[in-house]
Amino acid sequence: MTRNNLTAVLLLSCRDQKGLVAAVSDFLYRHDGNIIHADQHTDQEEAVFLQRVEWELEGFAIAREGIAEAFRPVAERFGMTWSLHFSDYTPRVAVFVSKLAHCLYDLLGRWRMGEFRADIPLILSNHADHRAIAAGFGVEFQHLPVTAQTKAAQEERALALLEESRIDVVVLARYMQVLGEAFVARYPNRIINIHHSFLPAFAGARPYHKAHERGVKIIGATAHYVTAALDQGPIIEQDVARVSHRDSVEDLVRKGRDLEKVVLARAVDLHLRNRVLVYGNKTVVFD
Amino acid sequence: MTRNNLTAVLLLSCRDQKGLVAAVSDFLYRHDGNIIHADQHTDQEEAVFLQRVEWELEGFAIAREGIAEAFRPVAERFGMTWSLHFSDYTPRVAVFVSKLAHCLYDLLGRWRMGEFRADIPLILSNHADHRAIAAGFGVEFQHLPVTAQTKAAQEERALALLEESRIDVVVLARYMQVLGEAFVARYPNRIINIHHSFLPAFAGARPYHKAHERGVKIIGATAHYVTAALDQGPIIEQDVARVSHRDSVEDLVRKGRDLEKVVLARAVDLHLRNRVLVYGNKTVVFD
Amino acid sequence: MTRNNLTAVLLLSCRDQKGLVAAVSDFLYRHDGNIIHADQHTDQEEAVFLQRVEWELEGFAIAREGIAEAFRPVAERFGMTWSLHFSDYTPRVAVFVSKLAHCLYDLLGRWRMGEFRADIPLILSNHADHRAIAAGFGVEFQHLPVTAQTKAAQEERALALLEESRIDVVVLARYMQVLGEAFVARYPNRIINIHHSFLPAFAGARPYHKAHERGVKIIGATAHYVTAALDQGPIIEQDVARVSHRDSVEDLVRKGRDLEKVVLARAVDLHLRNRVLVYGNKTVVFD
Amino acid sequence: MTRNNLTAVLLLSCRDQKGLVAAVSDFLYRHDGNIIHADQHTDQEEAVFLQRVEWELEGFAIAREGIAEAFRPVAERFGMTWSLHFSDYTPRVAVFVSKLAHCLYDLLGRWRMGEFRADIPLILSNHADHRAIAAGFGVEFQHLPVTAQTKAAQEERALALLEESRIDVVVLARYMQVLGEAFVARYPNRIINIHHSFLPAFAGARPYHKAHERGVKIIGATAHYVTAALDQGPIIEQDVARVSHRDSVEDLVRKGRDLEKVVLARAVDLHLRNRVLVYGNKTVVFD
Repeated sequence: MTRNNLTAVLLLSCRDQKGLVAAVSDFLYRHDGNIIHADQHTDQEEAVFLQRVEWELEGFAIAREGIAEAFRPVAERFGMTWSLHFSDYTPRVAVFVSKLAHCLYDLLGRWRMGEFRADIPLILSNHADHRAIAAGFGVEFQHLPVTAQTKAAQEERALALLEESRIDVVVLARYMQVLGEAFVARYPNRIINIHHSFLPAFAGARPYHKAHERGVKIIGATAHYVTAALDQGPIIEQDVARVSHRDSVEDLVRKGRDLEKVVLARAVDLHLRNRVLVYGNKTVVFD
Repeated sequence: MTRNNLTAVLLLSCRDQKGLVAAVSDFLYRHDGNIIHADQHTDQEEAVFLQRVEWELEGFAIAREGIAEAFRPVAERFGMTWSLHFSDYTPRVAVFVSKLAHCLYDLLGRWRMGEFRADIPLILSNHADHRAIAAGFGVEFQHLPVTAQTKAAQEERALALLEESRIDVVVLARYMQVLGEAFVARYPNRIINIHHSFLPAFAGARPYHKAHERGVKIIGATAHYVTAALDQGPIIEQDVARVSHRDSVEDLVRKGRDLEKVVLARAVDLHLRNRVLVYGNKTVVFD
Repeated sequence: MTRNNLTAVLLLSCRDQKGLVAAVSDFLYRHDGNIIHADQHTDQEEAVFLQRVEWELEGFAIAREGIAEAFRPVAERFGMTWSLHFSDYTPRVAVFVSKLAHCLYDLLGRWRMGEFRADIPLILSNHADHRAIAAGFGVEFQHLPVTAQTKAAQEERALALLEESRIDVVVLARYMQVLGEAFVARYPNRIINIHHSFLPAFAGARPYHKAHERGVKIIGATAHYVTAALDQGPIIEQDVARVSHRDSVEDLVRKGRDLEKVVLARAVDLHLRNRVLVYGNKTVVFD
Repeated sequence: MTRNNLTAVLLLSCRDQKGLVAAVSDFLYRHDGNIIHADQHTDQEEAVFLQRVEWELEGFAIAREGIAEAFRPVAERFGMTWSLHFSDYTPRVAVFVSKLAHCLYDLLGRWRMGEFRADIPLILSNHADHRAIAAGFGVEFQHLPVTAQTKAAQEERALALLEESRIDVVVLARYMQVLGEAFVARYPNRIINIHHSFLPAFAGARPYHKAHERGVKIIGATAHYVTAALDQGPIIEQDVARVSHRDSVEDLVRKGRDLEKVVLARAVDLHLRNRVLVYGNKTVVFD
């Protein structure tokens, strides 16, 4: 992958039809686009076509400001849902966290080391514990404690903070509050949660306890987009680790932490690189 | 592992108490037992102690006929549940199968190549399809078609056949009938089923369809002992495979077959080598 | 994946150039080709472009006999290396085996159950042991014992047998003889070997012994195309399994068998479905 | 696992002999030791016996100061190599690092979150880059630049610093200098290195480049004790990740980082919990 050259990414989906691939590649070819990544998927059952194509802006015959305009007729002809992204835009990420800090630490460390093409200007928590970590990484920290009474108001406040910081993506890094529908609706397919089980097994609370009680031989973690239905959103990434009868609940928690960190980081990275497309309640991951 | 020498295996469990390990090792030491494998597990929460110990009969001061008798006082002192096994006993396995033959083929192939320390004298099916395979491997084939009306009677008949063939272990190799409680009760922790999902996810029918619909990124298979509650018995072994949006339901079925074969074979092998102990609804696997 | 409809597959590679994707998709679009799978890869460093595209013959404007002819101008314009395949052709596979039969059994069982789109008309061995297995599956068995003196002559004989049976693909299912250069040259990228290690670790003889001696915590298996250099050919597929100090060499052999079977079967299946392209000493696997 | 109660751990190895297990368990039983973990391994080929046993100090009849003395006769009778550890001792770890900081960050984050039973009082680097990270975590940072000329002197200096800080374990967190024999000899089986390949494949420099060039389908990472022979020491832990032709060298590096972090952290944790025993050039990991 060429990371240094400026590129454009087109993500699109529509009803499957003949001539789709030809139309898109023709559009790029006619304007001297040098494709560096192209991948598509056809869901035969649903008759849905999805595509990701990335090309270099250098040498492309259309100025970046004009690309959307120029592509629109193609999109309209096929009834496409589409979005256009440029590799020099740096998405802005807010991290929501509660008491457990391992995912927060991991995300900040990766960000600091340049792993993510993103900024992290805001950390938001229902507890005050991690103010110092935020400060250490030079990130604004907002403490928004939540009770049943204050929840709606605090989510309003959170939305205002997100807007203020012009946030593109919200990452729930073991944030233990269920977000309200209104909140979720404002960031469709832009809120990423890590659930500490191999969904759909052990949805809801205390999955490691449930896994231990059931005596499973493998545990997992799942990163998914948040929807109104708890732990039911489109899955972006999952991974698993082998366990045995020797592992206590505490051991599962310990081993699970490593899964959670890696699975969440992979999902965030895939999202930030515009490699995830949602359709129905599923994702297509163009990796 | 020394496979050639004649060995004895003691499997035991009891309430956790001081002096357990000392008592067992002392018993073997005093009679010149050469331990070649010993493993134990203490479930701290349940205060349960479980142990597997294997030693060579050659040089052991007690004749094999007398070992159980000699050990009984130790077992009674600590209130142990225990069983004694000898490596020259060849367990007798019956395989139950329906339409899908991949697990059956795999088990027979392994048996023929000497992978299992077992005999397979009997294949039982609710369909007649695999009579030829059975014949090819020289195994008796019994066709017991099942309807809602005949089910109870046919299970009676099956039990009679198992008894006749002195079967120790029943392996459900993608057998698509739910066994009745009376049947299950006759072979407690001796009926091994392969379920084609990562339990507890997708219990019940059509797990690959459900997995595809949910859009999971990993599929699995689970081998477990059969209990009265469907797909709820103690898990012996699980494994998983990565899938993607590119995989249709048929692809999941295809990839899943390899998981099912390997997971079932491993579970059967562990059981046959007396390496599995059940307590509560869980297993301890002394591998 | 639509398995039932008749399809054509185009596999091609060439120097990376602008307009490649457009030219191919345009060719198919102009003739009403309904693409059901398309994947491409650009190796940026080597500036190599590789593509696999599969489309339905039903409704395609060019009769199958004329497709190659019609595509030739496109291919020549870009200097493509290419091949065209039809889904109703059944490739013919010969299996070479020595003493260990687990891969042979596995391949035959899969074939019998319809997993492979292939025929297996010939088994060839330097030992006579598996004549009965071949007979059981109704496959011709040729015993060609090999000594240093007879090797060249026997390979000539083997080549004649392959020709006679119109073999497309040779599968070395734990065949313990090193094939001569002349033999290999006759089936470039059409001889698939399973090596019982995670190559390039433990190339050559007795990999499980070496792995045990080195004390690795994971073992592997590798399926690769055979080239003149031993265990150095393009890797098609690999997989691994976790082991521990508890595993003797015999345990590694036992666990490794399951890896070998699955990895070899996957590689053979990928090859038979025209999903593997070789360039340099590497493969692109369009899965 | 009971983490809160004070425990003692005995690690021992010796020539395999009858009565070993009985002698150790008897020693503990006679003094009212409540065993909470016991595991042993017999290498049949080498006739070596290795054991780890952990018991609670509360209620044990011998005061902690007297345990070693009391056990000595047992150890001498069997010619044991042994060590005794107490769970309230906090080992002191020094981290060596060069330019790449992901493992350093990961170790510090885990330490800060209380994952390791250890202190990290010292970071040592041949570059000055990570002084600020060290400061952020409140850890002493020593910059010891190394050239061919200064290497011996700087290693002397490093040894002095380790002594000063009473370091028990040295962790090479992507430290890109080869340590001299004299240095290594001072911390036998107490220097843990992370190598960014699946050893023994791709030992030495630039393993990701070599892996990419070879076209492997799986990459790995290996944590091992450092010995005089480069990348040849006893392996503690390994793990792998699947890659494909789509992955550039940079992608391998990116995916590999996650492996390196997790594998190194696991190895360090196992060592700190006294769960690793070295014999010959291998480890027994009592997990």
